[in-house]
Amino acid sequence: MSKEIPYKIYLEEHEMPKQWYNVRADMKNKPAPLLNPGTKQPMTLEELEHVFCTELAKQELDDTTPYIDIPEEILNFYKMYRPSPLVRAYCLEKKLGTPAKIYYKFEGNNTSGSHKLNSAIAQAYYAKKQGLKGVTTETGAGQWGTALSMACSYFDLDCKVYMVKCSYEQKPFRREVMRTYGASVTPSPSMETEVGKKILLEHPGTTGSLGCAISEAVEAATTTEGYRYVLGSVLSQVLLHQTVIGLETKIAMDKYDIKPDIIIGCAGGGSNLGGLISPFVGEKLRGENDYQIIAVEPASCPSLTRGKYAYDFCDTGKVCPLAKMYTLGSGFIPSANHAGGLRYHGMSSVLSQLYDDGYMEARSVGQTAVFAAAEQFARVEGILPAPESSHAIKVAIDEALKCKETGEEKTILFGLTGTGYFDMYAYENFHNGTMSDYIPTDEDLKPGFDSLPKMD
Amino acid sequence: MSKEIPYKIYLEEHEMPKQWYNVRADMKNKPAPLLNPGTKQPMTLEELEHVFCTELAKQELDDTTPYIDIPEEILNFYKMYRPSPLVRAYCLEKKLGTPAKIYYKFEGNNTSGSHKLNSAIAQAYYAKKQGLKGVTTETGAGQWGTALSMACSYFDLDCKVYMVKCSYEQKPFRREVMRTYGASVTPSPSMETEVGKKILLEHPGTTGSLGCAISEAVEAATTTEGYRYVLGSVLSQVLLHQTVIGLETKIAMDKYDIKPDIIIGCAGGGSNLGGLISPFVGEKLRGENDYQIIAVEPASCPSLTRGKYAYDFCDTGKVCPLAKMYTLGSGFIPSANHAGGLRYHGMSSVLSQLYDDGYMEARSVGQTAVFAAAEQFARVEGILPAPESSHAIKVAIDEALKCKETGEEKTILFGLTGTGYFDMYAYENFHNGTMSDYIPTDEDLKPGFDSLPKMD
Repeated sequence: MSKEIPYKIYLEEHEMPKQWYNVRADMKNKPAPLLNPGTKQPMTLEELEHVFCTELAKQELDDTTPYIDIPEEILNFYKMYRPSPLVRAYCLEKKLGTPAKIYYKFEGNNTSGSHKLNSAIAQAYYAKKQGLKGVTTETGAGQWGTALSMACSYFDLDCKVYMVKCSYEQKPFRREVMRTYGASVTPSPSMETEVGKKILLEHPGTTGSLGCAISEAVEAATTTEGYRYVLGSVLSQVLLHQTVIGLETKIAMDKYDIKPDIIIGCAGGGSNLGGLISPFVGEKLRGENDYQIIAVEPASCPSLTRGKYAYDFCDTGKVCPLAKMYTLGSGFIPSANHAGGLRYHGMSSVLSQLYDDGYMEARSVGQTAVFAAAEQFARVEGILPAPESSHAIKVAIDEALKCKETGEEKTILFGLTGTGYFDMYAYENFHNGTMSDYIPTDEDLKPGFDSLPKMD
Repeated sequence: MSKEIPYKIYLEEHEMPKQWYNVRADMKNKPAPLLNPGTKQPMTLEELEHVFCTELAKQELDDTTPYIDIPEEILNFYKMYRPSPLVRAYCLEKKLGTPAKIYYKFEGNNTSGSHKLNSAIAQAYYAKKQGLKGVTTETGAGQWGTALSMACSYFDLDCKVYMVKCSYEQKPFRREVMRTYGASVTPSPSMETEVGKKILLEHPGTTGSLGCAISEAVEAATTTEGYRYVLGSVLSQVLLHQTVIGLETKIAMDKYDIKPDIIIGCAGGGSNLGGLISPFVGEKLRGENDYQIIAVEPASCPSLTRGKYAYDFCDTGKVCPLAKMYTLGSGFIPSANHAGGLRYHGMSSVLSQLYDDGYMEARSVGQTAVFAAAEQFARVEGILPAPESSHAIKVAIDEALKCKETGEEKTILFGLTGTGYFDMYAYENFHNGTMSDYIPTDEDLKPGFDSLPKMD
């Protein structure tokens, strides 16, 4: 007998997961190792420690331990804003007239406005535990920078954020939120770093990119005593921390005997999607259950659907290790026309391997269709979604409408990663009809592919 | 034996209140009736129906029915963003080193960013049920306008918002959120109404006030077929809807055997405070329990602490009924120097009567102290509070620090009404040291008091 499903399922504190799940442990084909860009040999723990905290470097390399304990201090911080609700989208279902059952896991109910806080607090914790003075990072849309500022403030760590210049200018309020939490924020590229100076010399008018900002943050971390670099996506350690999303979702669904047929998430660097799907993919990898999994990316930055599966630099400045991933090339710079995040040229190496092995599929969508879906969703479900999250909404609505045609009562789960309160500039363009779609031609993608490192 | 208190107490859906509590039913001294400004006679239902929906007019006049059923449709909407969490401020307690136990009821986890949605959805529902085409309203800081836009979008009603001009200019993103939900937003004073034209003629450079915007919205509602006016605070009907806050709080506290010694809330028009304290004040009125209740208002707009208890106009344009309340006079315009809401010249007539009868006390606080408390709170509790809500935080911290001195283990409850995501302009001034305090002199208050209507 199935229980009545409430609008929102909140776990009790004692039901919250106490371990992260490391999906790599269940993968037969492991993600390819990070390589030293000089020697092309796998990065050792010792090499990674120069950039990352020791414990995080260990997590980055660990592809065999299936469950990793979440330290008590992090669990306590999680309790301030988690569990996040698993929402049954009754109103959206009704509006669409679909027989599908739609659920979303909403990660926006915290001041960072997104899931980013799940990993930020973990990374700040390990930095503090190691006795560091502070951390550096980059931020694009600003969600990661905000999350890290909050986490560092909680543990009394210095936080230096390089913010992609166009976001810095378009989102002054994001900057002020970070300052409220005591962070210092620098527009990138800046004259503070050697790599920033070099990029500005080559491209004087550049409004920056996530790749440039990463390079500056890494340089600042490795040249300042007592600092390390932290990253909000892409890395396997980040995906590990984000599994708290999927684990909570799985516990909540199991409690009500719900099994999703389709699981949908937006994919930029891939950590939110990876975190959401990990426990489900784990069952798929172990042959216990099957799920259709869909990664959604912007048509303007289509790393999975049009990228190459190859070793590439993680950053434009080419100071980071090489990762094997679906990538458009570190030289690819997404159109300024594209609003919001999901601007990264590559994709988590864990997701890239899963995609290559056929455990998930990918779709790309245009941004005006995404904003139309966002507005439709907001008007019935109340929540004003982030542009990034709205990529998942768009495909969830598409799938629900397919069910309407076929009459199938599929259960659809998607990740609603965050809110769009700081993205009203993009919404304004959408309202005023000044937003356009951009799909790169093959010619547009060529410079990116040409920037891929030679591996022979 | 007391249970362990989680960080956040969420009620289950079936535990949510199904009725609002009308505190007026338990008051021996009822709030004074609204008067017709022409005849100085109590407003009749028939007169009120010209301005408000019939059902809401009835609620406005009803001071005897203690419990009023919440219609099913409103309960369903509540389930989309309620219950709101009752949070134990473990981290703030630790940071302050106080033996006090601090709780806050957090109303910011919805897109309107505040408690305003609790009444907006009720008012939109009754308008729809009456077969109206749309509603008009005013908004200051923008929270109410956003809430009403969301509610109207849900029930497919037109929504016309007059937004205080200085907020319209300082908060373009608020305007875009309202547009996302399909509302039309006009800066006030405007040339669209007679009263707007008159005010602009008399004060050409004015940046507007809540009182002016009310007058315009009322005029638009009463001169447009199929429209009514709705208001986000001050009125007894709004306070009634907001009791969902206090009822949920009471149920959650009772569940864990928690009894607050002090209850604190910010007070502008008074509906959030009234909603929070109603069930507790009810017990006090019936002699069942005692609580110390503190209303906190800005020093720049001190209606309770420095106002007069008198009949006054609710709006600058003098088109609304007269209400007996603590007021600075409808001619009082708060300093532009004052950031955020709580700018209203008067106070809910329910709260005014309770205050006059000694059931609650009031304190006024300066805005730089409020922002300092807000930042302190944000850094340990994560949530970035609205400037309005931070008035309550300031006094909660003051009381917790008193406990630290005396060693008393008091239980402090305060209302955290919303988030400050759209108030970063004010935070920026605070960070840059360009924010100042303004306390009106007795001379400054004189024009307001001179504007009080003659009642003989």
